[in-house]
Amino acid sequence: MQTILFKNKPKILSTGTIAGPKECEGVIGKFVDKTLTDDMFGESTYEKAECKMLSYAITKAIENGRMNEKDVDMLISGDLLNQIISASFAARDFDFPFLGVYGACSTLAESFAIAASFVNAGYYRNIVAATGSHFSSAERQYRYPLELGNTRPPQSQWTVTGAGAAVIASEAKEKAPSITCATFGKVVDFGITDVNNMGAAMAPAAADTILNHLRDTGRSAGDYDLIITGDLGALGSRIVKDLTWEKGVDIAGNHVDCGEIVYNVIEDEFQGGSGAGCSAVVFNSYIYEKLKKGKLNKVLLAATGALLSTVSSGQGESIPCICHAVAIENV
Amino acid sequence: MQTILFKNKPKILSTGTIAGPKECEGVIGKFVDKTLTDDMFGESTYEKAECKMLSYAITKAIENGRMNEKDVDMLISGDLLNQIISASFAARDFDFPFLGVYGACSTLAESFAIAASFVNAGYYRNIVAATGSHFSSAERQYRYPLELGNTRPPQSQWTVTGAGAAVIASEAKEKAPSITCATFGKVVDFGITDVNNMGAAMAPAAADTILNHLRDTGRSAGDYDLIITGDLGALGSRIVKDLTWEKGVDIAGNHVDCGEIVYNVIEDEFQGGSGAGCSAVVFNSYIYEKLKKGKLNKVLLAATGALLSTVSSGQGESIPCICHAVAIENV
Repeated sequence: MQTILFKNKPKILSTGTIAGPKECEGVIGKFVDKTLTDDMFGESTYEKAECKMLSYAITKAIENGRMNEKDVDMLISGDLLNQIISASFAARDFDFPFLGVYGACSTLAESFAIAASFVNAGYYRNIVAATGSHFSSAERQYRYPLELGNTRPPQSQWTVTGAGAAVIASEAKEKAPSITCATFGKVVDFGITDVNNMGAAMAPAAADTILNHLRDTGRSAGDYDLIITGDLGALGSRIVKDLTWEKGVDIAGNHVDCGEIVYNVIEDEFQGGSGAGCSAVVFNSYIYEKLKKGKLNKVLLAATGALLSTVSSGQGESIPCICHAVAIENV
Repeated sequence: MQTILFKNKPKILSTGTIAGPKECEGVIGKFVDKTLTDDMFGESTYEKAECKMLSYAITKAIENGRMNEKDVDMLISGDLLNQIISASFAARDFDFPFLGVYGACSTLAESFAIAASFVNAGYYRNIVAATGSHFSSAERQYRYPLELGNTRPPQSQWTVTGAGAAVIASEAKEKAPSITCATFGKVVDFGITDVNNMGAAMAPAAADTILNHLRDTGRSAGDYDLIITGDLGALGSRIVKDLTWEKGVDIAGNHVDCGEIVYNVIEDEFQGGSGAGCSAVVFNSYIYEKLKKGKLNKVLLAATGALLSTVSSGQGESIPCICHAVAIENV
């Protein structure tokens, strides 16, 4: 069985979020802790700005949980930059152990799943799970220097500038949603080689994990108020609906993709948002608020990641993808 | 407390190792499952060779444990390449869930620690923890194209070409060493900026985790037959001995560094071996054999990682480092 059931129901005690000006024009604008007016965040490079956002989100999640640094037992984090420098350098700011993970844009769900596993087992009491991304650092690392002004193809997505963190805790004084189970995904590769078409590459991994999750738990798609994917975008969202439907599971009625809803006006973003920061800000602000208020009570967060690099693509490889899922419920 | 104690004592059921021709001239030569005669391993690029080595080590560990792929519940792996493509692409070869981690050269200890945490909690029965590195892929990613023939400074180390994997299991039919506890490390940065001097950068992180481990467990350095660091090299090994000695803990008598012992003849390797593959091959072959035969009975594996990237160094940052430790005992 791929799915771990958490008997002790670790809580998502609090969250912290920050996002760029473009992102905050959309649905998350009212819910994030901080909206950047300038996506450099007072730093000299995009990478340093990305790291500072992540550090801010971690600090804010701890504050919002009415705790201080000493109450935190561990940070689980990763990001899209080579050698996950955002996460590692953010971790340097704090005096608790750090577990570095890499799951590309699936990092939020991956870190939630590990954090809940550790808290449920009684190893630690409070773990911060965090991730983020920055449009400009991702663009110049994965694609082209921004200064080149390359045209973006219509199947592309726009990396979200933002970061989100959550405190996963064994106990909460107030009502807080719980992580009830986690499904770690398998690597799925459908042979897509177009690095501008992440949605199509990642959708099969999302379908695989969602189907395995439902099989393991004996649940149906309709048992969830919402099945949220991370950053499939508009095209990828259509594909995951088709792929699950082909296997006899209809998720169309209650599926939503963070990448599809993050931007209000679609201009250069084409298929919508992407990046580790996409699900990190959408879940930890907008969705978390709905869970806290009881407007949503049972959510499956299934974040996908494309596990390619510029080197693997340059060497002619296709794009292996993964999806990790966690069920979050008001129980 | 940074340290998790494992009541159910997960076993290191079996290991699988592979290493390059230069590496196998040394102490590990007699113990690895496969010695490469050509470090390209029949592939067209160094990166593909690295991935194939990792895949080989995983397959061999499963075989050596007398199980098959269906018995394995999860792969935990990471490596030094951008976006950990060795691990992700190796994971594509197998039909079990994949958890991607990044801890640079601390990856072996990090993946052992997570695997033992999951097995101890009863989430999964058999988890493969694996990592590796390749001199030529690391060199051209982190430093210079090999074709340039750059002179290496005397404080530098030589990235090990090799991979190692282990099956961490809840049960073993035969006697097998157990992982009894794990200490996840904090990020430590002493301000070193010389990217050729990893030993000096990483030694403070090693000292921090070793000291915290001994404090948490109430053990003394002498309680261990061996305290093994991952790839501090000759210089870094001297520094970690000094740093712990300054805090009143003398590890000199029973400390050994995988990087210091991996090569027989020191020519271009200067301070010795490095890379995620260094502790992966040395531990999973030579040290594991000694544990199995009862020549060692209580070992602390403390692998360090330098969490830099070429971008962070290029932007003037110092090198944050980390060390994760696991205690492995015949109990």
